[in-house]
Amino acid sequence: MSDYPSIVLEQAVNQMASLPGVGKRTALRLVLHLLRQSDQDVEAFAGAFTRLKKDIVYCRECHNISDSDICPICASTRRDHTTICVVENVQDVMSIENTGQYTGVYHVLGGVISPMEGIGPKDIEIDSLVERVAKEEIREVILALPTTMEGDTTNFYIYRRLQNAQLQQLPCISQIARGVAVGNQLEYTDEITLGRSIVNRTEFKA
Amino acid sequence: MSDYPSIVLEQAVNQMASLPGVGKRTALRLVLHLLRQSDQDVEAFAGAFTRLKKDIVYCRECHNISDSDICPICASTRRDHTTICVVENVQDVMSIENTGQYTGVYHVLGGVISPMEGIGPKDIEIDSLVERVAKEEIREVILALPTTMEGDTTNFYIYRRLQNAQLQQLPCISQIARGVAVGNQLEYTDEITLGRSIVNRTEFKA
Repeated sequence: MSDYPSIVLEQAVNQMASLPGVGKRTALRLVLHLLRQSDQDVEAFAGAFTRLKKDIVYCRECHNISDSDICPICASTRRDHTTICVVENVQDVMSIENTGQYTGVYHVLGGVISPMEGIGPKDIEIDSLVERVAKEEIREVILALPTTMEGDTTNFYIYRRLQNAQLQQLPCISQIARGVAVGNQLEYTDEITLGRSIVNRTEFKA
Repeated sequence: MSDYPSIVLEQAVNQMASLPGVGKRTALRLVLHLLRQSDQDVEAFAGAFTRLKKDIVYCRECHNISDSDICPICASTRRDHTTICVVENVQDVMSIENTGQYTGVYHVLGGVISPMEGIGPKDIEIDSLVERVAKEEIREVILALPTTMEGDTTNFYIYRRLQNAQLQQLPCISQIARGVAVGNQLEYTDEITLGRSIVNRTEFKA
């Protein structure tokens, strides 16, 4: 698949193949699909990404993606502004919102601490979280980071930072429950998860 | 995944998800990847598709995608212009070129006859093929369409059209060999293919 009949075609395929998980063959198929669409449709397709990069801003409170200086969740008076849920990225906000179980606000770190990838505490929004907790009246900080080594490290780092921040009142710091996923068989659950689910058992309510 | 935190993000995700085989979740992942790239990179990404639609032309001879009025293959004096290989689309041209086994020129139909999809002989480049065979001195027409019902129908239609075209000299009409793929086990080859490979056996040359 090295010789494309056209340079503009090749450039479009290369751009499409620059997306993660899209190979050259898939890229060609997608580009030829676009080529069959109307001029307006292709214009709209390309325009959406230019606009995305130009118009998107990050909420000054929670650092989530937003259309304006303050995101709808932070601007809402119906949300509980004394509870902050700390997440890694935008997708996590959307996933938690979809559960319909959370009424507080968020803080999007934009990553987790990962020495392997060279991401330190200064590269993600931890300072702004500590500032926020110090400035506002926060009752609870919920750590909802991924259950990985990096997530755990970041949880621990945030915990220590908040403890050392000499706050007037330290908020309650919690983390999301880890255990056997709903619908899962015990025999197929990994040992660490199953072990934790026993250690962190909760009172049965009928 | 219904509530995006931003309208421009949602629009970009919707555009990305309009590509075949790309779901909303994947689209979001791809769009967030783009968002992490530099302004120039996103500009180049979007620009490639606008340019694609604006600048691409089709070769007036073979109807393949091209940067100019005549594609490099049709313009080449090193190709055998008396042999035309009829294919469905651009990918097929690229695949055959990659074999390095073909030195003739092509004719890209842009589809195959498919009553189910409402594609008739007038919707694809069959008239131009017949004209081309009538006008130029063509010795062989190789039918290299997909081995499907639609491909077979199109093969047969082209064969009849060329026979009825009252050409000075009817070119040899051939089709690509169908049989057991190289490296395949006989037991896993479907019956029709295996049956044809026996009927259309060729002389063994040591």
